[in-house]
This record gives sequence, C-alpha cells and structure tokens, in this order.
Amino acid sequence: MIFRQLFDHHTWTYTYILADTQSMDGIIIDPVRDQHKRDLRLISDLGITLRYILDTHIHADHITGAWMLRNATRGVICMGDASNLDCADLLLSDGQEISFGKHSLKVLETPGHTSESTSFFGEGMVFTGDCLFIRGAGRTDFQAGSPEQQWDSIHNKLFTLPDDTMVYPAHNYEGITSSTIGEEKAHNPVVGGLVTRESYIVIERNMERQPPKRLAEALPANRQCGR
Amino acid sequence: MIFRQLFDHHTWTYTYILADTQSMDGIIIDPVRDQHKRDLRLISDLGITLRYILDTHIHADHITGAWMLRNATRGVICMGDASNLDCADLLLSDGQEISFGKHSLKVLETPGHTSESTSFFGEGMVFTGDCLFIRGAGRTDFQAGSPEQQWDSIHNKLFTLPDDTMVYPAHNYEGITSSTIGEEKAHNPVVGGLVTRESYIVIERNMERQPPKRLAEALPANRQCGR
Repeated sequence: MIFRQLFDHHTWTYTYILADTQSMDGIIIDPVRDQHKRDLRLISDLGITLRYILDTHIHADHITGAWMLRNATRGVICMGDASNLDCADLLLSDGQEISFGKHSLKVLETPGHTSESTSFFGEGMVFTGDCLFIRGAGRTDFQAGSPEQQWDSIHNKLFTLPDDTMVYPAHNYEGITSSTIGEEKAHNPVVGGLVTRESYIVIERNMERQPPKRLAEALPANRQCGR
Repeated sequence: MIFRQLFDHHTWTYTYILADTQSMDGIIIDPVRDQHKRDLRLISDLGITLRYILDTHIHADHITGAWMLRNATRGVICMGDASNLDCADLLLSDGQEISFGKHSLKVLETPGHTSESTSFFGEGMVFTGDCLFIRGAGRTDFQAGSPEQQWDSIHNKLFTLPDDTMVYPAHNYEGITSSTIGEEKAHNPVVGGLVTRESYIVIERNMERQPPKRLAEALPANRQCGR
C-alpha cells in the first residue's frame, strides 16, 4: 500500500494519501486548499486514481482542498453524517467501510471536538482528526464541541483499538508525525495515564482560549467543502 | 520496529528515531539541538536505549543535538570517516553496519553535498541526508561540495537500491515527508528522469545561491558535534 503523510507549514495540518499499489485506487484525508497543486502533482506522479476525499470534520483553522480535488479528479467528497453538508457526495455513518482496491478504512464516529468529527481506522492505522492528538486532544469549546463526548470517543472507541495501532492526527505543533494508541494511553497528559473523566471535563470547561485565527474565514468555506 | 519521523519547523529538518521493539535498542538520525527536550522525552516515553547518534553530514543550517543526546543517553556519536571529527566516538566507513537489536542499517558513503555526506540503508528505507531530496538534491557549492560526486552518489549508489525503498531525506520544504527510489528516478526534476550528468553539473556550477542563514554559527558548532 502507498502511504504518504503531508504537512501544511502554515496551519500545522497533516494530510494523508493512501492507495492500493495494484488497482492504484486511492483516498486523501484532510486536504488543505493552499496545498492543492502539491497534492495533485503527487497524486499524478504516483499514478493514483482518487476515489474518496475525506475530511475528519468541518475544520476551523484551514480551508479544505476537497472541492478543488473533486473537480480535478472526480473523487467523491465524504463527511460524517452529522455534518449534513449539502456539498458532500457521501455522508458517512459509524461502521461504514471506505474501500480502495484491496484496502479499506472503517468509519468511527468520534464526536467531541465537533459534532460531526470522524476517525478512520484500518491497515494498522487510525486517522484521528482533531479528536485524539499526540499527547493532547482537540479543543471542545466551539462548533458544538463537548468534553464529555470527546472523552467518551477517545476512551470508548479509540483507546479500545489495538495498542500498536499507529495514530495519525490532523495536527501536531511539535513536529511529531505519529504515535500509537498504547503510547497515548500511557503518556497523553490530557486524556491518558491517570487523568479521570471528571478532571478532564472540569479542565476543558474552565480553559480560556483564543478562537482559531482563521475561524471566520474557514467555517463558511468548509461548510461548502472549500468551494 | 519502532520508526518515528520528527520535524523541526524552523529549519525544515527531519530527524528519525528507529528502535527494535524487543531489545528496545535504538538510534537517532540528524537530531536538532533546539529539539533536544522533545526528542529526549520521546526516547524516554518509548523506553528506548539509545545506542547510536548518527549525523548524515556536518550540517550548515542547524546545530546537531548529538552532544546533548550523548550526555543524556550515553549513545555513541557516529559520523562519516571523511569528517575526521575528534568529537565523534565512531567514524563510519562505506559498507559498515549499524545494528540495533535485530535490525541494522548499512553505511553508504554519498559525498557531493559535502565530502563526508553519508546515507543509511536498511529495513526498506534509505536516509539520504542532503544528498537526494524529494524532487531535488542538496546544493554542492560549499563545504567541499561537488556536483560530479553528488550525481555519482545518487546514480551509482542510491538509484541502484530497490525501487520501492522509502526515501527519507534530512529536509523538505514543501511538507512532503517521504518518497521512494522509483519515484525519484522517474520524477526528480534535478537528478532524475531525462536529466543528464553533464546538464546537472553545468546547472549546479552556474546556480547563484545565498549562503545558508545559520552557516557561520552552525558549522563551527557542528564540527564540535553540537557541544
């Protein structure tokens, strides 16, 4: 299987491209519109036929490249069904499989950062969006976020995956590109180790944060899939 | 095997940590001194015993974290033997094996960017330093660089590795984290595809570039292994 992790230096966003080396069917997760040329060139260089364009959630910090990729490749735009987005071609529900060639990822509804937040699990990897971060978790103070849901998504879904599952989030601000479920269960200072559900919720509810810089621009654009 | 790629946002440098999951013996390639705390914490979290600290060359754009890691972990500092560095514990020659647990990497002398530039090959991966980049190659206009040697290192050594070998360079300035030998042979606009040795050398010799911003600070520090 082809697997490529890409990084947007301005918004610290990770994008992922996966493809089957026989059929060359592939998918992209969390594309960034400003990186459209780079991503399209790589898809072309690798000879990938893009089948699905997945966003883990409606992003508040960058504009998705979904719409431009759809126009360039005819890939299908997918979003969690709680998003109810008209611009999506396919709304995904919990347990659904996204197949590309002989590979597939399973849809895991993981609300908490936002109501429609979705993770994708398969091939020994989980793409966690802004739910579970490396040594952190996505904030829960806007876009119908909920610390209760975030905790439950992480503990009842993500932390039940095999310990050696590679964790690939939508962001990291320290230059770390991956982790594992076992590592986050042991060492995540926000939602792992000895942290309790109650203390996590209290801390989240009382944390004062600045809104994301590009919120006002990104949300309306992403509600149109970056059109 | 544990494999982690790390990124320094200021100098666009990639650092790599590899370890054997049974013995937990590990190595680090191209550590950045400014990221010492991050790297040491990760080595500790993962339970790795650091055996070797490798630099692909004497860097001109960042200060190596080798000396600080050596003091913190007792890992052995390794450099290509053409470096003649007194601060290195072990000078590496072409063909030598670096072993950690049941895994190993083979030393490939790949001069051209600098005279002591070294690549490491094994486990389906090659760490190319500033010799072969993703869609590029390291500059050859200082530190005893040589476009002739650079071309020959890439074509006679790196491009003879299996096409599906993953390429992990010391830098990328587009947010691309990996490539393959096959992909670079086909699509690298500087040293791949239809480019000839003669045209590459002429272009390199005539290209005007600014010196690296941190050259004056980095070179003397790195000649002392970042002490």
